[in-house]
Amino acid sequence: KARPKKQLVSSRTRFDNRGMSLEEEINESNQYYRARDIAVIYKKPIPLQIVKVDYPKRSAAVIKEAYFRRPSTTDYNGVYQGYYLDFEAKETKNKASFPLKNFHQHQIDHMRRCLRQAGICFVIVRFVSLDRLFVYPASPLITYWDQQTNGGRKSIPLNEISATGFEVHYALKPRIPYLKAIDQLLATSTIDKGDHHGQ
Amino acid sequence: KARPKKQLVSSRTRFDNRGMSLEEEINESNQYYRARDIAVIYKKPIPLQIVKVDYPKRSAAVIKEAYFRRPSTTDYNGVYQGYYLDFEAKETKNKASFPLKNFHQHQIDHMRRCLRQAGICFVIVRFVSLDRLFVYPASPLITYWDQQTNGGRKSIPLNEISATGFEVHYALKPRIPYLKAIDQLLATSTIDKGDHHGQ
Ligand SMILES: [Mg+2]
Ligand SMILES: [Mg+2]
Repeated sequence: KARPKKQLVSSRTRFDNRGMSLEEEINESNQYYRARDIAVIYKKPIPLQIVKVDYPKRSAAVIKEAYFRRPSTTDYNGVYQGYYLDFEAKETKNKASFPLKNFHQHQIDHMRRCLRQAGICFVIVRFVSLDRLFVYPASPLITYWDQQTNGGRKSIPLNEISATGFEVHYALKPRIPYLKAIDQLLATSTIDKGDHHGQ
Repeated sequence: KARPKKQLVSSRTRFDNRGMSLEEEINESNQYYRARDIAVIYKKPIPLQIVKVDYPKRSAAVIKEAYFRRPSTTDYNGVYQGYYLDFEAKETKNKASFPLKNFHQHQIDHMRRCLRQAGICFVIVRFVSLDRLFVYPASPLITYWDQQTNGGRKSIPLNEISATGFEVHYALKPRIPYLKAIDQLLATSTIDKGDHHGQ
């Protein structure tokens, strides 16, 4: 499938070129969710260090020199039925497992902190060659992450992602209905949805 | 009190120069809260439209042309004990009331959407001349906002902000301990904190 080229140079290019099209699809899905009052979730803008700005008369300020900064958190956050949602979107061309090198320490640290605040943290993982998409919770991800330095594997097997995670099937409205997977995640988690203040 | 000039040109300059120092203080407070695992709250980076990027050999990519875009949401969001927090920081030199013209329609719309998802939405208002600081909930703010087009006032009286809001007193650690005010807000709100999943 040919995907249309973006007209603007995306600020993500430098860090994670592979994630591009998945991100566009998630952005579109979030727009759908917002428009229907289902959830309020946004992609966070990438932080820039702005060095030089011109203020031409009678027209908009122009940034003439700026640099990309590595984001200190994850790609997305927002609110869904009183729950704080926080997640990363990641793609892999691998067919049997998801390499942990796709994550950065600061993203794992951020997810850990959010979990301690009872946030709902996860990754949307896309296996490009298989065209399969999963919501995989942050807790088992962090366990895998920690184990790799103790002789554990450097990737999470697809079997495990498929067993512990929640598969998301491409649809039309929205393209990536990942909140269905979040409903499943909430239903099976220790967080009792019935007792939740948003209900 | 003299406040130190920022070394970098802030991307906020164009939109809300007045909010600068308040924002720095809130950023510092958020850092304190994160470091102590009290809450995970960040200032959202301002979105930019990037037009031209140079990729010099052996050095970092340089953005050569970019423009500020108006943010479609509020200044801050994050998670605190399972609650989604979302807020704006605003300052006024007025002494008796807070002018509604400090808000944009899109910020009000965003707060409305977040409230419908059971988010905790508010403004941190600073009366510069009085050196008083309040957490003022989004619901009464939205009521004032809506009434101004029906012959209502164009500002919220300090009396009202002081009565319905929660005063925050400057401190050392953190400088702006606004989560104390949020505890009060949660205690008096219809959201039952005892039933909350994060507890
Ligand atoms: Mg990503
Ligand atoms: Mg502001």
